[in-house]
Amino acid sequence: MTNADSPQYGHVLLVGAGPGDPGLLTVKARDAILAADLIVHDGLVDPRILALAPDTSRVSVAKARSRHTMRQEAINDLLVAEAKRGKLVVRLKGGDPFIFGRGGEEAEACIAADVPVEVIPGISAAMGAAAQALMPLTHRQVSSAVTFVAGQCQGLSEQDWTGLAGKGRTLVIYMGIATAQAIADKLIADGVAPDMPVAVLENGTRPEARVLRGLLADLGDLIVREGVVSPAVIVVGAVAARGGAALNQLAITAEMIA
Amino acid sequence: MTNADSPQYGHVLLVGAGPGDPGLLTVKARDAILAADLIVHDGLVDPRILALAPDTSRVSVAKARSRHTMRQEAINDLLVAEAKRGKLVVRLKGGDPFIFGRGGEEAEACIAADVPVEVIPGISAAMGAAAQALMPLTHRQVSSAVTFVAGQCQGLSEQDWTGLAGKGRTLVIYMGIATAQAIADKLIADGVAPDMPVAVLENGTRPEARVLRGLLADLGDLIVREGVVSPAVIVVGAVAARGGAALNQLAITAEMIA
Repeated sequence: MTNADSPQYGHVLLVGAGPGDPGLLTVKARDAILAADLIVHDGLVDPRILALAPDTSRVSVAKARSRHTMRQEAINDLLVAEAKRGKLVVRLKGGDPFIFGRGGEEAEACIAADVPVEVIPGISAAMGAAAQALMPLTHRQVSSAVTFVAGQCQGLSEQDWTGLAGKGRTLVIYMGIATAQAIADKLIADGVAPDMPVAVLENGTRPEARVLRGLLADLGDLIVREGVVSPAVIVVGAVAARGGAALNQLAITAEMIA
Repeated sequence: MTNADSPQYGHVLLVGAGPGDPGLLTVKARDAILAADLIVHDGLVDPRILALAPDTSRVSVAKARSRHTMRQEAINDLLVAEAKRGKLVVRLKGGDPFIFGRGGEEAEACIAADVPVEVIPGISAAMGAAAQALMPLTHRQVSSAVTFVAGQCQGLSEQDWTGLAGKGRTLVIYMGIATAQAIADKLIADGVAPDMPVAVLENGTRPEARVLRGLLADLGDLIVREGVVSPAVIVVGAVAARGGAALNQLAITAEMIA
C-alpha cells in the first residue's frame, strides 16, 4: 500500500555513513549520496563523506541533547515532506541506522505517511574501530557474545545492563565517554570484576585514532588522564586485552590498493 | 616489529564480504578484492562477490563443522605462507571478520608470524537483514541493547545466554536454524516470556529473502513449518514485531541510483 508507482512521490533512503573513513561506506551508500536530491545528516557524519556530494542540497540536523525528542519529530516531518515533494531524500547517519541511529522511528514515520523508504546499512562505529585496532569483538577462546549499549541515549541510571558484561562476553558502550566513571561504577556494582580488561577506541577509523587499554576499575581515570574525546567506544571484556601491539598498520590498504 | 618495509613480504587483509548483496561491500573491501593476488574465502561469501574478481586465484576453505579447529590452523598457515611469498592475500569472510568470523585468530597468527595484517570491516548479517526488513535492532521505545550470539559456533548447551534476551533488549542469534527449538527452550528456561516476539530473517539482503514473524514459544515449529534454510538470523525481542508490513521495497535503490 505505498505510492511507489505514483510519480509525484519521492523516496527516503536511511543510509548508514559508517564510522568515518569514506572507504568504509558501502557501495550502495556511496551511490545513494551521489544520487540524492537532498541529504539530511547529523553531526556524526564525517566531513570527507559529505564532501562526496558537494553540490547536493544538504540540511544538518545535529541534535542538541536536551531537545532530543522534539527534534526527532521535526526530522521525521522533514523527511516525509521532502519526499512528498518528489525528492530522493538521503537521511545520512553515522554508523548504522538501526543501531542507536533512531532509524526505526524514521522508517515508521515514512511508513505511516505512505512514503517509500529503504534502509542501507552501515559499518557501526564499534566494528570499524575494532577492525582498526585488530581487536576481535568475539573470539572463540574468550567471548561468544557481543552486546552494544549506549551510555547517553537514555539516562544511564535508568538502563539495566545486568549481566551484559562479564566472563565470556564483550560489552561495547557507545557515547560513554562523558559518563565513563559512572559506567565503571555501575558495572562493578553489577558484579563485573574490577580487573576486567577495557579498551577505549577513540576516533575509530580516523587518522587521529587512538587505542587505550586498561582495567575496568581505572576506566574513568584513564579517560580523564588521556583526555579522550568523542566519538569513542568503550570495550569491556577479555577481548579488550587482545589485538595489535599498536594500531592497525593504517597505511597498508591505501598503499596496496591505490 | 613487522617487516612491512621488507619487499619480500606480502600482506594479509581480513576482509568482511557483508551479508550477500555486492552493493553492501564497503568501498575498501571491493577495492581489496580487485587488487588481491589471492583470495581465500569461506562458504558464506556470495558468488556474485567472488565474481567481481574472476581472474584472481581463489582458494575455498569452507569448513566442515566437525573439523573446525584443525582447519582453522591450516587456514592460518596458508595465509601466513602466501603472504611470506610476497602476495597480497585477501581473506574474504561473510559478514564482518570480527563478529563470529574467527578473524581474531587469523590476525593473531599473522602478528605472531610477523606478517603485516589489516582488517576491513563488513556489514554483519544481522545488520543487513534487519535493514532489508525495516526492523530496527535498537529502538528508543523498546530496546536499548542488542546482543549477537551464535547458535552453533560452540556447543549450545555450553553457552551461557542468561539475561541476554528479555524486556528492553534485542538478542540476535546467528547460525541458529538447526538448533532453533533448543534455543527457544533454553531462553524460556532462562526466564524469557514464551510470548516474546521473534523474527526469522532468511537469506537477508538476497533476492530470495524472507521475513517470518512469530512468538518465542512457536519458534521451532515456525522454522520447520516454513522450511527455513540457512543462512538466516533469529531476532528475539520487542523489535521483532516492528518493521515493514513486508520486506523492504527492494527495487527502490536499484531504480533510483542506477
